[in-house]
Amino acid sequence: MKKIINNPVDVVNEMIEGIAFVHDDLVERLEGYDVLVRKVAKAGKVALISGGGSGHEPAHAGFVGEGMLSAAICGAVFTSPTPDQILEAIKAADEGAGVFMIIKNYSGDIMNFEMAQELAEMEGIEVASVIVDDDIAVEDSLYTQGRRGVAGTILVHKILGHAARAGKSLSDIKELADDLVQEIKTIGLALSGATVPEVGKPGFVLPDDEFEYGVGIHGEPGYRKEKMQASATLAKELVDKLLNNFEAQPGQSFGLLINGLGATPLMEQYVFANDVAALLAEHGIDVAYKKLGNYMTAIDMAGLSLTLIRLADDRWLEALNSPVKTVAW
Amino acid sequence: MKKIINNPVDVVNEMIEGIAFVHDDLVERLEGYDVLVRKVAKAGKVALISGGGSGHEPAHAGFVGEGMLSAAICGAVFTSPTPDQILEAIKAADEGAGVFMIIKNYSGDIMNFEMAQELAEMEGIEVASVIVDDDIAVEDSLYTQGRRGVAGTILVHKILGHAARAGKSLSDIKELADDLVQEIKTIGLALSGATVPEVGKPGFVLPDDEFEYGVGIHGEPGYRKEKMQASATLAKELVDKLLNNFEAQPGQSFGLLINGLGATPLMEQYVFANDVAALLAEHGIDVAYKKLGNYMTAIDMAGLSLTLIRLADDRWLEALNSPVKTVAW
Repeated sequence: MKKIINNPVDVVNEMIEGIAFVHDDLVERLEGYDVLVRKVAKAGKVALISGGGSGHEPAHAGFVGEGMLSAAICGAVFTSPTPDQILEAIKAADEGAGVFMIIKNYSGDIMNFEMAQELAEMEGIEVASVIVDDDIAVEDSLYTQGRRGVAGTILVHKILGHAARAGKSLSDIKELADDLVQEIKTIGLALSGATVPEVGKPGFVLPDDEFEYGVGIHGEPGYRKEKMQASATLAKELVDKLLNNFEAQPGQSFGLLINGLGATPLMEQYVFANDVAALLAEHGIDVAYKKLGNYMTAIDMAGLSLTLIRLADDRWLEALNSPVKTVAW
Repeated sequence: MKKIINNPVDVVNEMIEGIAFVHDDLVERLEGYDVLVRKVAKAGKVALISGGGSGHEPAHAGFVGEGMLSAAICGAVFTSPTPDQILEAIKAADEGAGVFMIIKNYSGDIMNFEMAQELAEMEGIEVASVIVDDDIAVEDSLYTQGRRGVAGTILVHKILGHAARAGKSLSDIKELADDLVQEIKTIGLALSGATVPEVGKPGFVLPDDEFEYGVGIHGEPGYRKEKMQASATLAKELVDKLLNNFEAQPGQSFGLLINGLGATPLMEQYVFANDVAALLAEHGIDVAYKKLGNYMTAIDMAGLSLTLIRLADDRWLEALNSPVKTVAW
């Protein structure tokens, strides 16, 4: 393992310190906790929080800021944050109008966020949540009942962030979130595995000429390994799977997110984007929003994912386009 | 070689199409050329252009937009753009107040940008330029007389972009640029080589437990190979080299840029940032500006660079902080 780190057990702590140092105009560390909170004056609005295992940077700390998350909890690498950490994030984020938790669908995350919710409610803070399960690659997985939550989560952060900033109530945000997660779907592929620092070797190894469709952001198995294919072939597989799953119709309006998993250069992501553009045009899809880059990574995994969001409501597009002040949106 | 591409000879063309598709709100392709121009109404101001070989994304196309570059020329991978392409960028960018070229110090780039300048001047367009040679790792290199131009170039884009937007004249911008490049220094390290798609294998290979200080962004040799070290040790080497080169004094004000070379996760970059912060504090340096991420990459190279800019003029800090509309700043 070659990594630019010190002691592997200190990686998350030192990373949080690094984030707080580099972005001290936007965020600060909640003292004594693995939580980053935004430097924005409280205004009595609903606070959004998210988090999960570390290793997916810039998610979620990179989306803390004005117009998006109030706080993010950074668990150990690929490990759910503990309830006490989540509870402190809830308490720090609360502005008196309730706290909304955006949770990726992993069994450990759900258990711990729900436990934190119970503890917070005992302290009189109103809490609600949504589970994001956008990954259509497989049903059930190593750490998940149902579908995994992956890159589409950042679109949930953005659209709900817009609603929270607009002063929507906790119940309005819950309703919006429940609608939204139905209309966001993701599928990915990996060219290599991710190396957790404390493990020291990749979670899986693919031969030099093979890749795998449908791998999860913690290296969970996908649905098919193949010899390496052209970008256009990869794009066709992912676009077809998504459009079929949506039962998309020509003329419908979608947003897209192409997400690098950590080690895949922008060069490749843009080549892939060009292939995706051609395919969506062939299907008569109106692409009303586009975003590309490394947003929900898997440490040093090579590969990417494609997310589509069906813009069922015009206000969702407005929410995606509204300016925010965060590290990474 | 596993890459998400189609035919290797089409990579740059398809990447440019991808950039133009994803970011059609900000940039467009100059029809028939490997040039991206900003979608901003001309206002009779100095136009900034930059470019070079592809493979350094988001540089330089990601810095085209309101407040930064007017256009970027994308050469073949790791290969200077040709004079005809640069000439077209100059002509497309010109608003009648002259065009300023930001050139990284590589012999091929300088030759071709200067040839394009001569051609443009024959057509009546006033052109000036600066050579960025911020990499203090080595003197002379595979493609360079003197020092290489690397990640510090994006700080030049930003500060000159602010001046151009403010309506400064071509000669004022030239004077500012000449001052600026004296005060920007960079040094990096690599954990792995970069694979040019048309070559199909890495430019160099390091053993599993070795890294190299001072490698260039095209894989040019550095100055020392070692067994892998802790981040704090790497940070000390780079910080010491930079501060010595600056002859920095306690109390002086600097900005810093930590730049990932393509395959290095943000997790590692932030751990490294935390070590850099401690060292600069020990030296009594005032860190007035901070930026971190993948800005000047070397395709899929693992590694990073550290850039310091001595903020000799308060207006440089203001320029770094001024909001812009680009893909990647």
